[in-house]
Amino acid sequence: MIKTLSFEDNAVVILDQSQLPGKVVFERCLTPFEVAQAIKSLKVRGAPLIGVTAAFGMALAAQNFNGANLVEYLNETARMLVSTRPTAVNLLWAVNRMMGIIETNKTIAKEELIHLLANEAMAMYDEDITVNKAIGDNGQELLGRSSNVMTICNAGALATCGYGTALGVIRSANKNNKIEMVWACETRPVLQGSRLTVWELLEDKIPVTLITDNMAGHTMALKQIDAVITGADRIAANGDAANKIGTYSLAVLARHHNIPFYIAAPLSTFDISVSSGQQIPIEERDEEEVRQIDGNYITVSGVKVFNPAFDVTPYQLVTGIITEKGIIKPPFYENIKTKFQEMG
Amino acid sequence: MIKTLSFEDNAVVILDQSQLPGKVVFERCLTPFEVAQAIKSLKVRGAPLIGVTAAFGMALAAQNFNGANLVEYLNETARMLVSTRPTAVNLLWAVNRMMGIIETNKTIAKEELIHLLANEAMAMYDEDITVNKAIGDNGQELLGRSSNVMTICNAGALATCGYGTALGVIRSANKNNKIEMVWACETRPVLQGSRLTVWELLEDKIPVTLITDNMAGHTMALKQIDAVITGADRIAANGDAANKIGTYSLAVLARHHNIPFYIAAPLSTFDISVSSGQQIPIEERDEEEVRQIDGNYITVSGVKVFNPAFDVTPYQLVTGIITEKGIIKPPFYENIKTKFQEMG
Repeated sequence: MIKTLSFEDNAVVILDQSQLPGKVVFERCLTPFEVAQAIKSLKVRGAPLIGVTAAFGMALAAQNFNGANLVEYLNETARMLVSTRPTAVNLLWAVNRMMGIIETNKTIAKEELIHLLANEAMAMYDEDITVNKAIGDNGQELLGRSSNVMTICNAGALATCGYGTALGVIRSANKNNKIEMVWACETRPVLQGSRLTVWELLEDKIPVTLITDNMAGHTMALKQIDAVITGADRIAANGDAANKIGTYSLAVLARHHNIPFYIAAPLSTFDISVSSGQQIPIEERDEEEVRQIDGNYITVSGVKVFNPAFDVTPYQLVTGIITEKGIIKPPFYENIKTKFQEMG
Repeated sequence: MIKTLSFEDNAVVILDQSQLPGKVVFERCLTPFEVAQAIKSLKVRGAPLIGVTAAFGMALAAQNFNGANLVEYLNETARMLVSTRPTAVNLLWAVNRMMGIIETNKTIAKEELIHLLANEAMAMYDEDITVNKAIGDNGQELLGRSSNVMTICNAGALATCGYGTALGVIRSANKNNKIEMVWACETRPVLQGSRLTVWELLEDKIPVTLITDNMAGHTMALKQIDAVITGADRIAANGDAANKIGTYSLAVLARHHNIPFYIAAPLSTFDISVSSGQQIPIEERDEEEVRQIDGNYITVSGVKVFNPAFDVTPYQLVTGIITEKGIIKPPFYENIKTKFQEMG
């Protein structure tokens, strides 16, 4: 599987996912601002991946800085990176973790701090892959032989440092010969399903059928779907989960068809400081994302558009949340609380 | 409003809807085969419109014919036209109505039969507009002041000879100042919502906001939608309704949000010879419709695709069916039966 992200020679090297599957292009971000731009423009996307990318952005900032007050500059850089995308909490989590290193090591030599930050970001990168494999292995136990699994967006290797969350579960299940078919929703408007999930699964020779988002209900009615599995961008203390727009519709449809609906996400995606999904900020993106495809208008150019990038699935519609520390089941508020208390 | 269809100088003139909204192009179909091709390729679409277009195709066939056995030729033409699209019953209904004229007038002079057929098709054209206005006027009574209405695909003037079915209801409601906003689902893969419904509503200065299909659930949760209104391609004796893919998902979502779900369709869309939706043939179209937009691949070119053009909404999810003869409410089987008995 292709490398989504690396840190080398004073640059954060990203795979430009906006050009997939047509072109595999890597871009060298030479400044924290370029890193922020890559996140904002969806060249880098996926909650876990944007977190680690921002962490590398912080390390890059430290390396690049030539001024007097490094800590102040790193604070500013942190604010810039965090402001790029408001919904996914992993971004905040990763930047805060880097700020923790800075806080604790304010007084050490600049060269040492740079080294510590690069190491921390690298550790987060490695941890992400380890965590995803654990999510995959925990989640695959939920699936039986010849499973038909539906997913939306791309919660795969491309959304993470490797292996994936929802697609990590599918990957682990496929290793155990449990996958009959993955039904991938194309995921308008940015088409992460058709562009990324299809590409990633075909690269790994995992059987996949592409559908448009409005075919989900009909497909559930006809094709004996065994589970819907998606990623998440932020999970509240009560289990409400923000994820790619369309996830909520899938959860309602899954409930109507008695299909279990699972979220696969690392514990870094939980934000127990927010009590419910109503408090999660939902990013609304440029209307042109809906009006245009590849720069061509597919509708009247001036039409009003509503373009929320995420929606919130209330915990009542969630069967279980697959994490690296096991599967959290209802009652979510209590079980999430216990899980975080165990970790201290 | 633009004319979708006309019959003139030995030609069926169609508005090529596949080029809207970018280009307004009319095409002169000079043979019944060209008419069939226009229907099959979605240049002409919408259940009521393809019915009347096929009727004009039959009249054109009669005018063009120079051989010995006109009736045999018209029978063959009927088979060709009906075979273009299997789901919408209006096509079958319209061609059968033309065949009825042919059956009853087998022995009259050829010139007279040609005249009768052209008149019958023209009558169907006029009736369609009258029927749609009645649907609109009946349906608008279901809406109160400041209504937010969601729709999918295009069941508008463009799907009919004029005025529209679902959009006919919206048009009539708007005349009575009842429309706050129409939420138009873009309707992948062919984008009839973004290309046609948006264009048609903006032409008529009816407020419209475009969303992608996967935003429907989130929009229902947030925007106080008062009703979902769609067209239909075939309605079974029990009230099950085949319509554009995605309609079923909307109906499930509407039920979850306690939003009334209405179908607006002429009585010619009912097929009481089929007892339930399970017997309605669902057209599956070319996989490239999903893989490409405007001739460019938006996914891996070889990926497997499921591309049903329609789905079936079971009558249990339908609040009412708006027809030119009033609104049919549950119990549907009994009330549909009574409606057709009344008509004799």
